[in-house]
Amino acid sequence: MERIYFDNASTTNLNAEVLNAMLPVMTDNFGNSESVHSFGRDAQNLVDTARDTIAETINAKSNEIYFTSSGSEANTWAIIGIAMANRDKGNHIITSKIEHVSVLNACAYLEKNGFDVTYLDVDKNGFIRFDKLLNEIRPETLMIAIMSANNEIGTIQNIKAIARTAHEKNIIFMTDAVQLYGHMEIDVEDMEIDAMTMSAHKLHGPKGVGCLYFKNGIKIDPIIFGGNQERGKRGGTTNTPGIVGFARASAIAHANMRIYNHKLKSLSEYFEAKLTESVENVIINANIKQKLPHIISVTFVGVDGESLMTKLDMNGIAVSMGSACTSNSLTVSHVISALGIQADNARSTLRFSFSTSNTFEEIDKAVAIIKQAVEELRAYSSTYSMKIRKRKGDKNV
Amino acid sequence: MERIYFDNASTTNLNAEVLNAMLPVMTDNFGNSESVHSFGRDAQNLVDTARDTIAETINAKSNEIYFTSSGSEANTWAIIGIAMANRDKGNHIITSKIEHVSVLNACAYLEKNGFDVTYLDVDKNGFIRFDKLLNEIRPETLMIAIMSANNEIGTIQNIKAIARTAHEKNIIFMTDAVQLYGHMEIDVEDMEIDAMTMSAHKLHGPKGVGCLYFKNGIKIDPIIFGGNQERGKRGGTTNTPGIVGFARASAIAHANMRIYNHKLKSLSEYFEAKLTESVENVIINANIKQKLPHIISVTFVGVDGESLMTKLDMNGIAVSMGSACTSNSLTVSHVISALGIQADNARSTLRFSFSTSNTFEEIDKAVAIIKQAVEELRAYSSTYSMKIRKRKGDKNV
Repeated sequence: MERIYFDNASTTNLNAEVLNAMLPVMTDNFGNSESVHSFGRDAQNLVDTARDTIAETINAKSNEIYFTSSGSEANTWAIIGIAMANRDKGNHIITSKIEHVSVLNACAYLEKNGFDVTYLDVDKNGFIRFDKLLNEIRPETLMIAIMSANNEIGTIQNIKAIARTAHEKNIIFMTDAVQLYGHMEIDVEDMEIDAMTMSAHKLHGPKGVGCLYFKNGIKIDPIIFGGNQERGKRGGTTNTPGIVGFARASAIAHANMRIYNHKLKSLSEYFEAKLTESVENVIINANIKQKLPHIISVTFVGVDGESLMTKLDMNGIAVSMGSACTSNSLTVSHVISALGIQADNARSTLRFSFSTSNTFEEIDKAVAIIKQAVEELRAYSSTYSMKIRKRKGDKNV
Repeated sequence: MERIYFDNASTTNLNAEVLNAMLPVMTDNFGNSESVHSFGRDAQNLVDTARDTIAETINAKSNEIYFTSSGSEANTWAIIGIAMANRDKGNHIITSKIEHVSVLNACAYLEKNGFDVTYLDVDKNGFIRFDKLLNEIRPETLMIAIMSANNEIGTIQNIKAIARTAHEKNIIFMTDAVQLYGHMEIDVEDMEIDAMTMSAHKLHGPKGVGCLYFKNGIKIDPIIFGGNQERGKRGGTTNTPGIVGFARASAIAHANMRIYNHKLKSLSEYFEAKLTESVENVIINANIKQKLPHIISVTFVGVDGESLMTKLDMNGIAVSMGSACTSNSLTVSHVISALGIQADNARSTLRFSFSTSNTFEEIDKAVAIIKQAVEELRAYSSTYSMKIRKRKGDKNV
């Protein structure tokens, strides 16, 4: 059975060119980048070049780039490391209700350790409201952490404005850019970002490597101890092949950003048009312009999302109910809930996310299968028939 | 110039068979192991099988194996995670002066956060003394953390006896087995180990993947937050290719352990014989039977270690002054110092570490180069001539 992968916000396939860049590093340049002999220097040179590449893509300095093993590690590090190192500034953090679980769980850890965290509400499209943000700022607020783009609905926040607001009050601004990075231009200087996280496997790079940018001068405690790696801030033998792969994936994504985004947008628009034309009673969530081009959140009214996902999977189509990181949990997505979508519709919501590897033909095939699956599920769904009757003004409901 | 790599305790080259196991996972099985669709399940199955493989090698249960990004992450996690989660048992930890920097720095972090850490002395061969260990145990001792084998001198501790001592007092026993794992059989049940760390790249596996074993029932806090990965204990998208590579490297190391150790021992013995025959006034440190077969620490009396290492490097021979993790720092190795070796001899000490990729021919070549380099350096060394004259009883010194 031909399989169709529409879960690219969860992870992407490895670009062949990225693999080719990694292979010689895996086989020949195996030295430990901390070793002072030639094998070590060869590895160090590769890491330095990769660091320069990543730095350039966001207009940062090379010594502001710290490699990690994942976006989650980078998020945990930024949240806990900055909070712990800047306790003298205060014990209050502002974040949002739609952050990635790595941010939310790091914040929960801080709450257990003497910090106070405010989780901002978002509007129905996932935007945080500035008036609410301003209301929540206190003299003891040390950090504002708001994701650049949401991983389930694609909403892109007004990062520059939030950062400026933070800085006016002398507050550190951190953003999780794991989903945005590689899709949109980021200039950390212009956007006044103090700390930002990224991950390679979201942009056809390897798994096992992420990155934390933090501005020179920002204090941060390590969370992984070790030797002098990453300028003494993050222990662990350097994953040279992974880092080289990350840089290559990053370079490819940035060199082709306009073309790729055009394709992703075309795929998404085609999917949306096809889907709404073929399947009745679907709601496109966060149907806004200021969003990532490749993520679409769809509510199939009256359809159990898990059943639909399973039916699609049985037909070779991979989609998700939300973040893969929480996909094994049975609760409704915290992001979808935060949009104010009621529980039954939240449970009817699936995320479709495309990559440039996807084709219009795949969308045609997928929509036909989705149409059939939705119709089958609705035929057995008392909730759906009730809803529809309600909508039609049936007074017997 | 042909290069000779004698720094295998720092990192090893990637086994071709391991790379072959990783490649299809990098290209085809790219799914996120937490996704519930077929791409995710394929990845999850690979990770499950790898987890079984690693568990079997140490006689643990599969659900006691937690993958990390490195040995340093695993060490940090074990030390801080166990200490934090078991604060109700007490605030005292016993470790040794010759632990890896990831353990020592994690302990230093705990000291800043209300814990009390005892760093045990070792004897001239690097063994901790039981009488001292017993003396240091207090009612509030919650954990004893002693490395299985030292990374600079190869000394293998009496882990089973230390673990038993800990358990008699109801203390958690943790061991850093990053250097031992893959070289010696470990049975965590028989040896009563509660927590143990390992790393793939020390045994011809990939960089960027390590592992923490901890016994079911031991409480531990996460240090990297995220979703449900690693049973909710360690966030971050699973590095499936790295984990598959680790398992393959581990399986190869364990299936061939006897043959490999025989070869490593032969290489080491040959090197030692050749070296002591060719170069005068060298001291083999921790010259004992209970040690890793591939690590030899050598003091070249009267020779500046860094100069010798540089000279060897210029001739294509890679050796190290100690751990690569601390190689960029200018201080004398904390391990060599702890053996009671005086400062000038400590600065004259190099680590040679072999792998099965090395040959007797390489040793012949290397010893010839070492001999020449040492003679050149000694010719210019006033320290050396003074020492030798002193030893010969020259009263004018």
